[in-house]
Amino acid sequence: MTIRIGIMGYGNLGRGVENAIRQNPDTTLAAIFTRRDPASLTPLTPGVPVCRASEAERDAWREKIDVMILCGGSATDLPEQTPKLASLYHVVDSFDTHARIPQHFAAVESAAKAGGKVAVISVGWDPGLFSLARLLGQSVLPQGADYTFWGRGVSQGHSDAIRRVPGVADARQYTVPIPEALDAVRAGEAPQLTTRQKHRRECFVVPQEGADLERIRQEIVSMPNYFSDYDTTVHFITAEELRRDHSGIPHGGFVIRSGKTGRDGEHSHIMELSLKLDSNPEFTSSVLVACARAALRCAGEGQSGCKTILDLPPAFLSPLSGEELRKNLL
Amino acid sequence: MTIRIGIMGYGNLGRGVENAIRQNPDTTLAAIFTRRDPASLTPLTPGVPVCRASEAERDAWREKIDVMILCGGSATDLPEQTPKLASLYHVVDSFDTHARIPQHFAAVESAAKAGGKVAVISVGWDPGLFSLARLLGQSVLPQGADYTFWGRGVSQGHSDAIRRVPGVADARQYTVPIPEALDAVRAGEAPQLTTRQKHRRECFVVPQEGADLERIRQEIVSMPNYFSDYDTTVHFITAEELRRDHSGIPHGGFVIRSGKTGRDGEHSHIMELSLKLDSNPEFTSSVLVACARAALRCAGEGQSGCKTILDLPPAFLSPLSGEELRKNLL
Repeated sequence: MTIRIGIMGYGNLGRGVENAIRQNPDTTLAAIFTRRDPASLTPLTPGVPVCRASEAERDAWREKIDVMILCGGSATDLPEQTPKLASLYHVVDSFDTHARIPQHFAAVESAAKAGGKVAVISVGWDPGLFSLARLLGQSVLPQGADYTFWGRGVSQGHSDAIRRVPGVADARQYTVPIPEALDAVRAGEAPQLTTRQKHRRECFVVPQEGADLERIRQEIVSMPNYFSDYDTTVHFITAEELRRDHSGIPHGGFVIRSGKTGRDGEHSHIMELSLKLDSNPEFTSSVLVACARAALRCAGEGQSGCKTILDLPPAFLSPLSGEELRKNLL
Repeated sequence: MTIRIGIMGYGNLGRGVENAIRQNPDTTLAAIFTRRDPASLTPLTPGVPVCRASEAERDAWREKIDVMILCGGSATDLPEQTPKLASLYHVVDSFDTHARIPQHFAAVESAAKAGGKVAVISVGWDPGLFSLARLLGQSVLPQGADYTFWGRGVSQGHSDAIRRVPGVADARQYTVPIPEALDAVRAGEAPQLTTRQKHRRECFVVPQEGADLERIRQEIVSMPNYFSDYDTTVHFITAEELRRDHSGIPHGGFVIRSGKTGRDGEHSHIMELSLKLDSNPEFTSSVLVACARAALRCAGEGQSGCKTILDLPPAFLSPLSGEELRKNLL
């Protein structure tokens, strides 16, 4: 059976889901829903229906779609969309505001339970695969310390914060893990690291004509929450250089568990998951599609309600049967 | 509720499980079962009962033990013990003969189903966490290539093979991944690698007095299956040097998925799980104990039958509640 997927929201993430569907022969794209004018979209997939977002609530679509993947933003889209659609469809989202996950979970849980549907939230790599790595590390090595490093990669939030500084025309910010900190963790030293010791921030800024560069630099490096706790470098470049050298959206990072075992903790162990991603949204989209498969498998077992990647039997992410997995992968 | 664990077999793995139980406050050691004379064992845990293996089948023990962890070897112990005990207890084993896993699964599945018990087989790091990493890699990046490298670490099988060469008193073999191969994979080059290009083998051999060293070296490096497909180095050392420098049982390795996404596969992604383990058996034991917890959680949901780590919701490995996991780990 082919899994018929609907995409809600056609930005970077929605286009990534469309591409990921093309890589997974057991999935097919049923429809794209958008809040923009449907006629303004040109999907990659020939002949795919493009509809207004409000149409997703119609019964006609509910019969044609097995899983709806929600590709909106975590700030305002998903807190509203996921609970609303989770009573109508099995859904998957990439809600990534860590502090608000419990609240989002509660809202989605009651909607999904009410509709007898499965909702998988906060899917991607962090939250997502990195959460899974943290869980495995803590469960297998209860005596130890956790480290998550991000980057080298583009932080949209920090780039946006720079763009709000007066005199800035455009900007791109890279989060960069500090190699000495990574090395110390990997050597099993279990160091206590400050924010400044773990990451530095590198900013590429296109100033408006005639702007005071030194004032811009000062405003950036002293910005609370975003930059003041970090060593921050600011490079001023042209719009052309930004387009040429910084148009990609790479990211990645490292989750490391450093733990001890033995009679007196005499043996050290290091578990590390690392990701190096050319395209953050495309990788996230790929995880979303695998989780759509898992949502349907959970539903097939009669389950309903809200889940995260920590609740999904990993085998459900794969198109292979249990028998094939045991024979070829185990 | 404390999870009462029984240990069947008190070698390196059994002692590792005993140590891991001491690190997990929600678990306790109920009894150790051994085929040796129980009086000959001196467990670390004060007052723990040590019993003959055959006693494990008595009802009195079945009431006192929640999960039995089977710490025997994959060659002859587990193929017999796991099916036998899986009808009496929830069990966890570390069966690691990859080619025979389907057969072992079938035998354990019918026993566990018959007894209404949950059995988790082939737990550890490979098979185990490495299998999970391969599954995640293939599921998230269906267009890509998989690589598993082992080491630097001690291979018991290869060490044993050397010890069978006439004139060898003792030996220790290290499997060593080749850095150039690892680098090429991590660079996203998705190279096709021969056996010889991925690993080399390093042997530390204690010869018997008067043995012909060159003949021993030739017999080792030309041994089919074990060494002939690899570049193998043989170092002759004294028994004292072997004891001093090679008494540990370190291991580890790398599972790397190199994949592409995008409209035309224009974006590369690298997912990598790496393990660096001071003690192979103690780490495996730590995974066994986490899976004992998961077995009991599955049983609590009314499940029965044989499972592998690919079937377990990761959250079941953790002593934390779903709420705590979402708040702190996700």
